[in-house]
Amino acid sequence: MAELVGNVLVGQSGGPTAVINASVAGIIAEALNHECIEEIYGTLNGVLGILQEDLIDLAAQSQQQIRALKHTPGAALGTCRYKLKKQADFDRVLEVFKAHNIRYFFYIGGNDSQDTADKISKLAQAQGYGLRVIGVPKTIDNDLPLTDHTPGYGSVIKYLATTVRELACDNESMGQGDLVSIIEVMGRSAGWIAAGATLAKRKDHPHDPPHIILLPEVPFSQEKVLEDVKRVLKREKFCQIVVAEGLVDADGNYLAADAATDAFGHAKLGGAGDALGEIIEANIPGVKVRVAKPGITQRAAAHAGSKTDADEAFLAGQAAVEAAINGETDKMITLVRGDTEHYSVETGLATLSEIANGVKKLPKDWINEDGVSMNFQFLRYAQPLIVGEVAVPYVDGVPVFAKLDKSRVDKILPAYEV
Amino acid sequence: MAELVGNVLVGQSGGPTAVINASVAGIIAEALNHECIEEIYGTLNGVLGILQEDLIDLAAQSQQQIRALKHTPGAALGTCRYKLKKQADFDRVLEVFKAHNIRYFFYIGGNDSQDTADKISKLAQAQGYGLRVIGVPKTIDNDLPLTDHTPGYGSVIKYLATTVRELACDNESMGQGDLVSIIEVMGRSAGWIAAGATLAKRKDHPHDPPHIILLPEVPFSQEKVLEDVKRVLKREKFCQIVVAEGLVDADGNYLAADAATDAFGHAKLGGAGDALGEIIEANIPGVKVRVAKPGITQRAAAHAGSKTDADEAFLAGQAAVEAAINGETDKMITLVRGDTEHYSVETGLATLSEIANGVKKLPKDWINEDGVSMNFQFLRYAQPLIVGEVAVPYVDGVPVFAKLDKSRVDKILPAYEV
Repeated sequence: MAELVGNVLVGQSGGPTAVINASVAGIIAEALNHECIEEIYGTLNGVLGILQEDLIDLAAQSQQQIRALKHTPGAALGTCRYKLKKQADFDRVLEVFKAHNIRYFFYIGGNDSQDTADKISKLAQAQGYGLRVIGVPKTIDNDLPLTDHTPGYGSVIKYLATTVRELACDNESMGQGDLVSIIEVMGRSAGWIAAGATLAKRKDHPHDPPHIILLPEVPFSQEKVLEDVKRVLKREKFCQIVVAEGLVDADGNYLAADAATDAFGHAKLGGAGDALGEIIEANIPGVKVRVAKPGITQRAAAHAGSKTDADEAFLAGQAAVEAAINGETDKMITLVRGDTEHYSVETGLATLSEIANGVKKLPKDWINEDGVSMNFQFLRYAQPLIVGEVAVPYVDGVPVFAKLDKSRVDKILPAYEV
Repeated sequence: MAELVGNVLVGQSGGPTAVINASVAGIIAEALNHECIEEIYGTLNGVLGILQEDLIDLAAQSQQQIRALKHTPGAALGTCRYKLKKQADFDRVLEVFKAHNIRYFFYIGGNDSQDTADKISKLAQAQGYGLRVIGVPKTIDNDLPLTDHTPGYGSVIKYLATTVRELACDNESMGQGDLVSIIEVMGRSAGWIAAGATLAKRKDHPHDPPHIILLPEVPFSQEKVLEDVKRVLKREKFCQIVVAEGLVDADGNYLAADAATDAFGHAKLGGAGDALGEIIEANIPGVKVRVAKPGITQRAAAHAGSKTDADEAFLAGQAAVEAAINGETDKMITLVRGDTEHYSVETGLATLSEIANGVKKLPKDWINEDGVSMNFQFLRYAQPLIVGEVAVPYVDGVPVFAKLDKSRVDKILPAYEV
């Protein structure tokens, strides 16, 4: 395999996670080890930054800033949900790559982003332009196929398990058999995140909160939920419910949704918690309902992040560079769980097009027969992902996060209309 | 002063905080130092537990559990919002105290709770029953008079400042000049909590998020808020708003409230964030609004608690026992800020009746002229309260909290109908 000499470009796309920047740190750390890599650039706001030639020099950032990326939430490079649509967009991407001698492109994102990376890779191949494209998995939704799990997932469920356990302390002290506490969590089409809240339960304490987990995989039945709530209220002092924002009834209607859709045609959700609360208050006399909706704060909660997750996000970034140096292209890094007694993980590779069009569903046989709790198979899967705490530095009582110097690399090409 | 020999009773009341249990730990730690104190009891669910003779033996709990109280959210003894109404209730309280030889009563709570403690104290005095009653301040609302601040406040604002700073990282990476991110925080009648979110700003970075803080002290004007939002969106990539749940317009109407009131006649709030979001979406074309509502999770977030706050809550508990041993009664422990260059605090005493009927307002001259940000006087006041991180032990990736043994002390009296 011929050595490919040139520059690296790193981009972030889609919704951020608590550890998406750890992957950037991993890419930079590994890229600095290889002589064939000259410059390490970042694109601001994913493909938008490529189209507009908004690139920054990542190698020029201070080492403290790069180190701080490992615990900084949000996407430090900026992200986007812009979808490359027309051929002119793709041509422009290649033009920018050529102008800046980009030979290695690392795109950190979910399904849609991997689809974009795949198309860029195929276009370069078609044009005979030497480019290695490696995707780095990222999504709190944990719905990417062919990888055991996805960086970002462990941190969001660690934060939610922590929050549910804390909420339980508060609810238990207030409850008199009449308190229903609802927390609405993210999860568009799969219940991975809601399911993860089960980790708030102590080992061998199945009656610990959360008492009821409402997953998109189990069609919502008002009658059953009301019965479940009444049964828990009789048994416990309070009833704690975790509801996925994407909860649907048997006909596939969202419990609450507005008509808006995003650039990819996905419905924008929100309101399942409030809607559920209204149903419960209207149907169970004397009950008090409290609804919490952490919203975006749940995916940004780096202060409560999982060390396992942050370490794996960094590892995935490193592995992406190693794979590209070894001649791989049009692949995404995967996490492969070791067949060992104690949890271990290695990285693997999957073809981008297979990632782009697949979805990893929450296995139905990991849900208990009651439809509202998770069994030992889910626990065995998810428990190791939240182990360890990220050491976040505090100054004056608040965490300190990375702020990259966003001075632009000199533009070479004429402006492009997005 | 004659030594008063007998038993201690500790109770918790009102909404819990992240550090209300640290005060219980402080009371137990100090009570064990005094020979005149024989048993240390806790009442389950505040005055309800007294009426129903639901007492537990705190001295019999393991030392690990008492130590864990220092970082356990919720009220480990249970709390209540029950208001002692009729004379029979008060007589019953005294009857239970006499039956269990309670000579020291420590009640941890806010205004309403201190009012209850005051009435119990006065009744005992009227009956010539030797009883020393000391209140321990507690409320996230920071609205108790005569104390520099209140245990519970530092932790809730540390958590919110952390969350706002994290949310800012996420919002900044997504924003394209069109993103409005709202977080609705607690605060019934005073903006202490919402104001505290300003600590998310870096020193000397007034344009850092939160960009707009909407306080109950500043009447809501739709026109002004829309102008403020537009101005921030022009200047920044996104606009981050902190809104107090108790926001009111110039006529005193809540921005959003349902008709319900609690046992003390206070309106139950919630929905200001969603209501504000709807106003913004309806009036600024093309804007995307995201609303987070941490709800009760904000006062339960012990994993992100302030060490200063937890230490002061413990100190207030210790000081309550010392004061009672020294013959004080019908008083509440206060926190007195030292007149020193670096922050320091001592405890003082205030008369219960003065606490019960007062409210500490957020000084209007701590709000900047723009009405949506805080000035250096607030910063100087609030900044020291969030310093230091509580060391919470984690097992299997989630924090471990105290679980008290709730075996009841033998009941002596006939049952009482509440």
